[in-house]
Amino acid sequence: MKVEYINPFVRAVASVFETMMGVRLSRQPIYVKNGAQPAHEVSGIIGLSGKAVGTVVLSLSREAAMRATQALLGERPHDLNSDVVDAVGELTNMIAGGAKAQLEQFSMSVSLPTVITGKCHAIEFPTRVTPICIPFECELGDVTVEVGLVELQAPVAAQPAASVA
Amino acid sequence: MKVEYINPFVRAVASVFETMMGVRLSRQPIYVKNGAQPAHEVSGIIGLSGKAVGTVVLSLSREAAMRATQALLGERPHDLNSDVVDAVGELTNMIAGGAKAQLEQFSMSVSLPTVITGKCHAIEFPTRVTPICIPFECELGDVTVEVGLVELQAPVAAQPAASVA
Repeated sequence: MKVEYINPFVRAVASVFETMMGVRLSRQPIYVKNGAQPAHEVSGIIGLSGKAVGTVVLSLSREAAMRATQALLGERPHDLNSDVVDAVGELTNMIAGGAKAQLEQFSMSVSLPTVITGKCHAIEFPTRVTPICIPFECELGDVTVEVGLVELQAPVAAQPAASVA
Repeated sequence: MKVEYINPFVRAVASVFETMMGVRLSRQPIYVKNGAQPAHEVSGIIGLSGKAVGTVVLSLSREAAMRATQALLGERPHDLNSDVVDAVGELTNMIAGGAKAQLEQFSMSVSLPTVITGKCHAIEFPTRVTPICIPFECELGDVTVEVGLVELQAPVAAQPAASVA
């Protein structure tokens, strides 16, 4: 995954958290995801497809997911209920939508979000993909965004650039 | 999700398992997924987007995922390693691709598969979606396919008295 494709996702996450919840994110060092590092307890996941295909994962600790839901709905959920699923799914959808708008050379559309819950779940990409992991700290708790993107067709505007991996 | 959209997924799963692994599936009663029923230990997940958006989940027991990998690669994996991730991801990709080809009225494309592992993971859809769960039995073990599909735009063929171009 080329480095110039990472910033649209970083900007989209920051914009969605700031706009929707008034939360400012502090980005931590980005790294290449290597194997089955466990995700946080709640992960929203959504696909992108067009001239590139990809997956975006928004992973949050249980407490961060609860607080995000409270920030969106105005009421704290009792547990990881359907309100949390809808909130995390919608945040994931908006992040993917915001990033794809900045990557218009790929004419991508977003699929339907789903939300994975479970203390011990891991999310793995096919070995042909080099997924990028973008950790953030914020008042809600720990938040991580993982992105894997594979170009199916080189965009006309693409310049040669160093890859992260 | 309309019932006529279910059969393309049933046919795609049966065709992929038969063609790729010589495995015949016995379909069990289909039901509407209601909340966070736990998935099997290994779940491939992929998005669909176009005039409808959707998610396809192929969930297998640990043993079924190992056996499917062996059937595809000719060698039994030692554990839930990257071979299993690639095998389950590719099966998921082929199932979604086979189904979308039969649902051409939605002009959908598939995203990038990811694979969730974890004994206690659950996969939940947004509350506005009615996901369908299709269980199968086969020699590999238990296999379940879950599908959620939301129409963004009514397909031309679904309109009453559609004119013939």
